[in-house]
Amino acid sequence: MSISIRDVRLPDGRTTSVYVEGNRIADIGAKIEADITIDGRGKALIPGLINTHTHAAMTLLRGFADDMELHDWLTSKIWPTEGKLTSEAVYWGTKLACLEMIKSGTTCFNDMYFHMDAAAKAVGEMGIRAYLSEGFIDLLDPAHGEELLKKTRDGLRRIASVGTDRVVPAVGPHAIYTVSAESLKALKALADEHGYVYHIHVSETKQEVDEAKDDHGKTPGQYLESLGVLGPNVVAAHCVWLDDAEIRTFAMRKAKVAHCPVSNMKLAVGRAMPLAPMLAAGVTVSLGTDGAASNNNLDMFQSMKATALLHKFATGQPTVAAARTVFDLATTGGARALGLPAGELAVGKLADLALIDLRRPELTPTHDLVSNLVYAATGSCVDTVICDGRVVMEHGTVPGEAEILEQAARVAADLGRGA
Amino acid sequence: MSISIRDVRLPDGRTTSVYVEGNRIADIGAKIEADITIDGRGKALIPGLINTHTHAAMTLLRGFADDMELHDWLTSKIWPTEGKLTSEAVYWGTKLACLEMIKSGTTCFNDMYFHMDAAAKAVGEMGIRAYLSEGFIDLLDPAHGEELLKKTRDGLRRIASVGTDRVVPAVGPHAIYTVSAESLKALKALADEHGYVYHIHVSETKQEVDEAKDDHGKTPGQYLESLGVLGPNVVAAHCVWLDDAEIRTFAMRKAKVAHCPVSNMKLAVGRAMPLAPMLAAGVTVSLGTDGAASNNNLDMFQSMKATALLHKFATGQPTVAAARTVFDLATTGGARALGLPAGELAVGKLADLALIDLRRPELTPTHDLVSNLVYAATGSCVDTVICDGRVVMEHGTVPGEAEILEQAARVAADLGRGA
Repeated sequence: MSISIRDVRLPDGRTTSVYVEGNRIADIGAKIEADITIDGRGKALIPGLINTHTHAAMTLLRGFADDMELHDWLTSKIWPTEGKLTSEAVYWGTKLACLEMIKSGTTCFNDMYFHMDAAAKAVGEMGIRAYLSEGFIDLLDPAHGEELLKKTRDGLRRIASVGTDRVVPAVGPHAIYTVSAESLKALKALADEHGYVYHIHVSETKQEVDEAKDDHGKTPGQYLESLGVLGPNVVAAHCVWLDDAEIRTFAMRKAKVAHCPVSNMKLAVGRAMPLAPMLAAGVTVSLGTDGAASNNNLDMFQSMKATALLHKFATGQPTVAAARTVFDLATTGGARALGLPAGELAVGKLADLALIDLRRPELTPTHDLVSNLVYAATGSCVDTVICDGRVVMEHGTVPGEAEILEQAARVAADLGRGA
Repeated sequence: MSISIRDVRLPDGRTTSVYVEGNRIADIGAKIEADITIDGRGKALIPGLINTHTHAAMTLLRGFADDMELHDWLTSKIWPTEGKLTSEAVYWGTKLACLEMIKSGTTCFNDMYFHMDAAAKAVGEMGIRAYLSEGFIDLLDPAHGEELLKKTRDGLRRIASVGTDRVVPAVGPHAIYTVSAESLKALKALADEHGYVYHIHVSETKQEVDEAKDDHGKTPGQYLESLGVLGPNVVAAHCVWLDDAEIRTFAMRKAKVAHCPVSNMKLAVGRAMPLAPMLAAGVTVSLGTDGAASNNNLDMFQSMKATALLHKFATGQPTVAAARTVFDLATTGGARALGLPAGELAVGKLADLALIDLRRPELTPTHDLVSNLVYAATGSCVDTVICDGRVVMEHGTVPGEAEILEQAARVAADLGRGA
């Protein structure tokens, strides 16, 4: 299968043509004959956005509980409802999330949730790319952790059994306050052995830092380092409260950060993640939406703008988190975080691409395309999406949309009633 | 002309029918025969959003200069370019702004810019509602102010000559640091005499507060109070740095606030506007996008979400700026700010309405419609817009869109080249 996208604008300012063969970008510049020809006039072509931290099926809990204290929100609303999740619910919730992500130009996401075999089936069908980890919570009990580890190995096999390179198994130790040291280490060994991403929440709240100091005499980053867990395959979500020493350690270990500005603001985690110090130290920073219960959408364009706004506001410096920097976090940053040859328009990279409709009022005029993408666009500006060399949305239409909306609404209503 | 919107969901949870006769909501509940029948199934009906602070034609400068220090941005980029604005540019820039606002569910805006007769013509044609004020800047020279005042009176007549109740003249003293005390008072007298809105920037930056203390021995709010300017017709944009005494004065004088969270964050004005204290004191707070050069879009849905995120983050309290509170700011708050019988779905109110398409992934499921509108929606969820009892957008289509995009891009490119 080959695709030729003709006369399209790229973020670097060129107007050119891009040729896709198989699942890769094979040429930039020539108008090569292809199975599918896409007229790129009036459009921009960007790398598909990469969402490095979400809980996809939490779309089912969108708007279910907002404007609450984090602890109250989790214990009285989210956790009791999640306890009733079924495979069917996760399947439709993940389909809904994939639909929303495709429609808003995201081609790859890093997911942590439950019933991940159902999620894997959903992602396989939807045609985008995902790293899927079962949320691992042994409640600090190593014996329980050992049992869970067996289930985890089974689960990883079931995820892999979907049989496409787009569906990538990963491990998902939830956090240092919910997972024992033994399990944190065992999962790291498993990840290293098989090349899995190690997806974990780190330093989201000050409470987590204070408790880590009380329990371990260390900050969360220091604690993970002391366990030998930090490494290039770690994708640490949030990292709001990392201090300078932890940032240096992350840089040294090449551990990756998934920054979730919308969720952090909505849940009022207390400060802005130290973005500029991380970038200065050479830490790979990427962007995530977090789950739809704490955002409440999966629009990475919105997360790009929120990143710029949050860091300008928090530092008092309108020059920080400039448009190009933020765009890179959502593209090359995501690709580096996951070790994926994507996030760039370059020959040999994966053909995970989004076409943006520039003929919209909010994208007119185009003094600066990247500025418009970060500050003026929303996910609704996305016209066509290609993932792994295949068209998954054409002119805003994703096959099966009506059924997904209907089924997801049905299972969400069931969940809501049960709570 | 009459319109019957059948079986539509309202933000209060009801599913019912709404009947519009002339430019007013005439009935809620009955399915009355009408000239136009709109099927509301799968849709929500909300009051059209009210944007109480913008510079509409700055759409022409969208993305022209970002990520800069405020002073540098204004003096090296914005002001030199604005100096070259023509009537034709403002006409097409305002048409573009109206198009963008209609598409994102805004039916009324409070505008301050230049060549406002051209803006008035544009708004008249586009079918939405606007309060239009020529930005008044006498550079603290009362003699220059007297000349400008004559021009202002002429300009107000030209705005009114468009001859529709939707286009409302207003006065626009730019700020206390650009307008002399004499002119601030003279414009207030003019506004009081004719019932005009008095649209002014107040306390956007700390620098403004410090300079006011140096120059007048007073904070900006105290200074305006000492001039006798504060009153129910004042719409003060930003008000980021108002202190408790100023908030009490605003409440006492019934002066209104236009909160612009996206612009405030992007320009890094230094702190969050004291929203909770203002609401507690009984100040009318409304929402504005500010101009597209400092936002960079005119999507009031995004400004609603930014309001919630900013205040949760800045206060550390996830319970503040709850969805319903924020939705009210953008609807009833805006109507109160402008003294407009709108912003509510109630018999007798102006038929300024937006229909939201609920059959979208980001609005699925609907556990809480108002939460979805504030946290999950973008302006792209708007399907149909009615203003002053007339359909101005049906199923996403606004007449003349292609020409507006083309002409606005052309005049914006000319402006950009000249700079």
